[in-house]
Amino acid sequence: MNDTPAPFTEQDYATRMTRAAGEAAVAGLAGLLITPGPDLVRLCGYRPPASTRLTLLVLTPGSEPRLLVPAPDRPAAEAAPGAGAVRISDWRDGQDPYAAATGLLLPNGRYGVCDTTWALHLLGLQEALPLTAYRPLTVVLPTLHAVKDEHEVARLAAAGAAGDAAYEEILSARFTGRRETDVAADLARLLRERGHSQVFTSVASGRNSANPHHGAGDRTLRKGDTVVLDFGGLKDGYASHTTRTLHVGEPTQDERTVHDLVLAAQQAASEAAAPGVTCQDVDRRARRMIEDAGYGEYGAEPTGHGVGVTAHEPPYLAEGEQTFLVPGMCLSIGAGVRLPGRFGVRIADVVTCTEDGARRLGTTDRGMAIVA
Amino acid sequence: MNDTPAPFTEQDYATRMTRAAGEAAVAGLAGLLITPGPDLVRLCGYRPPASTRLTLLVLTPGSEPRLLVPAPDRPAAEAAPGAGAVRISDWRDGQDPYAAATGLLLPNGRYGVCDTTWALHLLGLQEALPLTAYRPLTVVLPTLHAVKDEHEVARLAAAGAAGDAAYEEILSARFTGRRETDVAADLARLLRERGHSQVFTSVASGRNSANPHHGAGDRTLRKGDTVVLDFGGLKDGYASHTTRTLHVGEPTQDERTVHDLVLAAQQAASEAAAPGVTCQDVDRRARRMIEDAGYGEYGAEPTGHGVGVTAHEPPYLAEGEQTFLVPGMCLSIGAGVRLPGRFGVRIADVVTCTEDGARRLGTTDRGMAIVA
Repeated sequence: MNDTPAPFTEQDYATRMTRAAGEAAVAGLAGLLITPGPDLVRLCGYRPPASTRLTLLVLTPGSEPRLLVPAPDRPAAEAAPGAGAVRISDWRDGQDPYAAATGLLLPNGRYGVCDTTWALHLLGLQEALPLTAYRPLTVVLPTLHAVKDEHEVARLAAAGAAGDAAYEEILSARFTGRRETDVAADLARLLRERGHSQVFTSVASGRNSANPHHGAGDRTLRKGDTVVLDFGGLKDGYASHTTRTLHVGEPTQDERTVHDLVLAAQQAASEAAAPGVTCQDVDRRARRMIEDAGYGEYGAEPTGHGVGVTAHEPPYLAEGEQTFLVPGMCLSIGAGVRLPGRFGVRIADVVTCTEDGARRLGTTDRGMAIVA
Repeated sequence: MNDTPAPFTEQDYATRMTRAAGEAAVAGLAGLLITPGPDLVRLCGYRPPASTRLTLLVLTPGSEPRLLVPAPDRPAAEAAPGAGAVRISDWRDGQDPYAAATGLLLPNGRYGVCDTTWALHLLGLQEALPLTAYRPLTVVLPTLHAVKDEHEVARLAAAGAAGDAAYEEILSARFTGRRETDVAADLARLLRERGHSQVFTSVASGRNSANPHHGAGDRTLRKGDTVVLDFGGLKDGYASHTTRTLHVGEPTQDERTVHDLVLAAQQAASEAAAPGVTCQDVDRRARRMIEDAGYGEYGAEPTGHGVGVTAHEPPYLAEGEQTFLVPGMCLSIGAGVRLPGRFGVRIADVVTCTEDGARRLGTTDRGMAIVA
């Protein structure tokens, strides 16, 4: 039930870093500058201690990867699973970390830099090397982070399967007379039992289901409630993210109609996730269907986003996002209608783009489950 | 026991924003650019929904504060307690957010920008307005974030008092035969009972006490253990952060000697936190004392950092940090010795710098408590 995959090896990380440097070269970049966060974890397996000090992975096509860390963090960096594939150097308190970084960069190079790199560090590099230029990674190399290799897709599929199993089990639980927070705690426990190390569980019932930002509160569930479950987390370092809408007892005709619409919109958007389609296209597919049914003003939620070592990352499925889908992208794709003061419905699953089109990683039934 | 202070008013936020813009003018800046995080919370009370989209508060001396938000976030922004003191505008999906921001900035201005502002946004602004210049806020205006007003110091003191009370109560609990995670859970409950809305509790016992990055594990406590408790969180939006080292049963002479040394070093560093002293001076005060006693290689942990709406923020008490302390700064100041394979001791408290010198906000006894 809880199969733990083999850890990624030094060779896995070396391969990823070489591929990333190669993509940088194709994009006309002198290299990539990676600061702490999901990209650093994916590329060399390193999660540094929380710190504001400069930690920088420099990937240069044709050269060995270099990792600059604050001296106190050196033991942690050397213990990272990908450490053997990088050359580590350090800087000490009282030294200028940006001066230390200049030795790793071309003085007039054009570099891709993480979107989330702090201004403090970017300004420091710009000052130390005034002729270098920088471009955000999601703009200049949108596939680097978004495209997962087969081992990563397998982990995302395993996380999705664990989420599915937790969902199927919660359906046989009692809902009536219990609080949202009770159901949320049950679902969290089920996710952990199925191998999740981090979890999030939102339970929005009755009128709360119309609020896309509801977490879980003290409201007691009762017959007649629509309930939106939004849940997931991390299993073996990769994310699950599922949304389902169920009903306590029999739904009204209105509730059925809206659920059917949302399900159809989510199905259409998911099927659209094929190579050569843009993120905006996928978003429009769901949105247009909801607009055409007359619910346009109630369907404003984002259609989706990437998933990987985090449950929420680029690319974003939204108007204006022109990134093309390519095989290996893994996306949370959803649709929703929220009727303020009444009820709301949302359905979302993780889908991966393959050569042959979209493939769902969450495969549990999306119909409106009736619970007790 | 759990006195909830009155919420900050629109006027409080207006005053803070006016003061910040005034400091920017004195520093020769055209204004301040504030992105989501602690600065935005302090200045206008706004915590936006998690998003990668540009949210930007622009403070210009002599002009009204402007807040640019993604259109879907507008209702959340308008609900912020300081919203009445800012003029809100929005940008929509498909629009260029940086083009939208240009109307709020001088085309050739020099701006202070949050250290943590994302490279994605800074590069977008630099491209949209090539003649603007940017400097990190902690470099160009280190006091802005670090200096708290009297209402904020009162909240930090109340958070510290709640932490003290929780600590004093945990001392009468049973330690022997229970796991670190059990004690951590007890301490977390006590902190919540005393008004903390977020908590962190680390319990490092026996050899684990020598590891500064230990959280809390399955180890069962037993007689003879040194135990480092590192705990705190947020109460009414402001942080507590306390570290104490206690002992299960009678300590050895070695353990006493190290505890006495750490206590003296922490005392000396705390007393040093007076106006006109640099962050580096405070750090050196603790570090030299530990070095002089022959424990230099075991005292490498940072001496401390700022606290405010987060438990860990600039300025940093470290070698090379030349920021001068000024009245209103609130700092976590600690000292520690970690002997790998044996035991470790750390003591830390929040201290505020006043015109008259340092004042402790955590006032509970720092001696080595003996527990059962």
